[in-house]
Amino acid sequence: MPTPDAIIDLLAALAYGELSAFDRLADDARMSPTLAGRAEMSAMAAFEFGHYERLAGRLRELGADPAEAMEPFVAALDTYHALTEPSTWLEGVVKAYVGDGMAADFYREVASFVDESTRTLIHEVLADSAGTAANAGVAGGGGRAEFALREVRAAVSANPAAADRAALWARRLVGEAISQTQHVLADRDSLMMLMVAGTGGLSGVASMITRITERHEERMRALGLAS
Amino acid sequence: MPTPDAIIDLLAALAYGELSAFDRLADDARMSPTLAGRAEMSAMAAFEFGHYERLAGRLRELGADPAEAMEPFVAALDTYHALTEPSTWLEGVVKAYVGDGMAADFYREVASFVDESTRTLIHEVLADSAGTAANAGVAGGGGRAEFALREVRAAVSANPAAADRAALWARRLVGEAISQTQHVLADRDSLMMLMVAGTGGLSGVASMITRITERHEERMRALGLAS
Repeated sequence: MPTPDAIIDLLAALAYGELSAFDRLADDARMSPTLAGRAEMSAMAAFEFGHYERLAGRLRELGADPAEAMEPFVAALDTYHALTEPSTWLEGVVKAYVGDGMAADFYREVASFVDESTRTLIHEVLADSAGTAANAGVAGGGGRAEFALREVRAAVSANPAAADRAALWARRLVGEAISQTQHVLADRDSLMMLMVAGTGGLSGVASMITRITERHEERMRALGLAS
Repeated sequence: MPTPDAIIDLLAALAYGELSAFDRLADDARMSPTLAGRAEMSAMAAFEFGHYERLAGRLRELGADPAEAMEPFVAALDTYHALTEPSTWLEGVVKAYVGDGMAADFYREVASFVDESTRTLIHEVLADSAGTAANAGVAGGGGRAEFALREVRAAVSANPAAADRAALWARRLVGEAISQTQHVLADRDSLMMLMVAGTGGLSGVASMITRITERHEERMRALGLAS
């Protein structure tokens, strides 16, 4: 069984992920060419904040102070966001769907290594989030896929070259996400142990990466972009 | 009775107020010296977004497109926020409490001029918002007063000169809010008519301003700042 420390680390990493996703989505929403698009991305931000509150609540139940528990993960997540700051609305949309979808897949994998009550919480938080079919149409929820598709289509039909740039951009998101995840794992023994033990060793880690990559490619296909 | 146009204008002005409050609070949250303070101001932002969604929902029920209905109010509210962009965490805190509290008082006054169902919606949206005792302690809700008081006290005890600067800053918030409200009313006949008819003429407008000013002074006293 994972140690309580590993569970707190996992929930704290997820919580800071949600708090910084809130922050970045709220910021990126401003680039929307329309008020409607701005409201939609703002809805996603508010939604992520709701997730943050649930995770922070669980951390408190476990006797941890959320701000203190999140501190070790601030640098890696802030670096990820600094290196993937969208410079156009299209980049913001792709990041909201592809980047956050990939993070959600990662957390869903890790959730299978932990106790049932933590797993249920993580699944509930992610269920209505990026890239899932459930709750399609809920503002900020699974409707994100349709939102991303509509915005990407609009951008690409206005400028076909945008598709290639968006595909390159998505590759950068993947690269930076992997790089920052490695930093976190190298730094937090408890999480590294959780991963290796949970996947059943290094070959297990490799197949987990394969599964996450496949789901990423599905999302890129759904957007009509090369992966 | 106010015309349907006036009701749509009123709800749309309030809706864009909430959308831009969301946006500004999310932005100002970043200035927090602590992760806990950042999470608290982010909670306020997410809370305002919930209000936006309720108002946008009502606009749709009335057959209006929220984005289109909000358009006439974008310039005035964006100008208010551009002219009152906080440059310190303390300024952000004072704006979140004093500025948004004043806006809430204004909308509460105007709500008394409209039909019961619109009034109920406005009261519900505002009840759990800035500066009310109800829901104190709810993240993002009425707990804002305690949050503002705690942050102002911390800033002033670290630097007593901050109290005078915060008092000046609050006066600027009041001045810009009045100025932008006048622009909106000069521009939207329907809202001007609603105000003048609702208050019973110009002397009514004057007593409404007196009431809003008194509540503003109460908030400043609560923060221990000169008004």
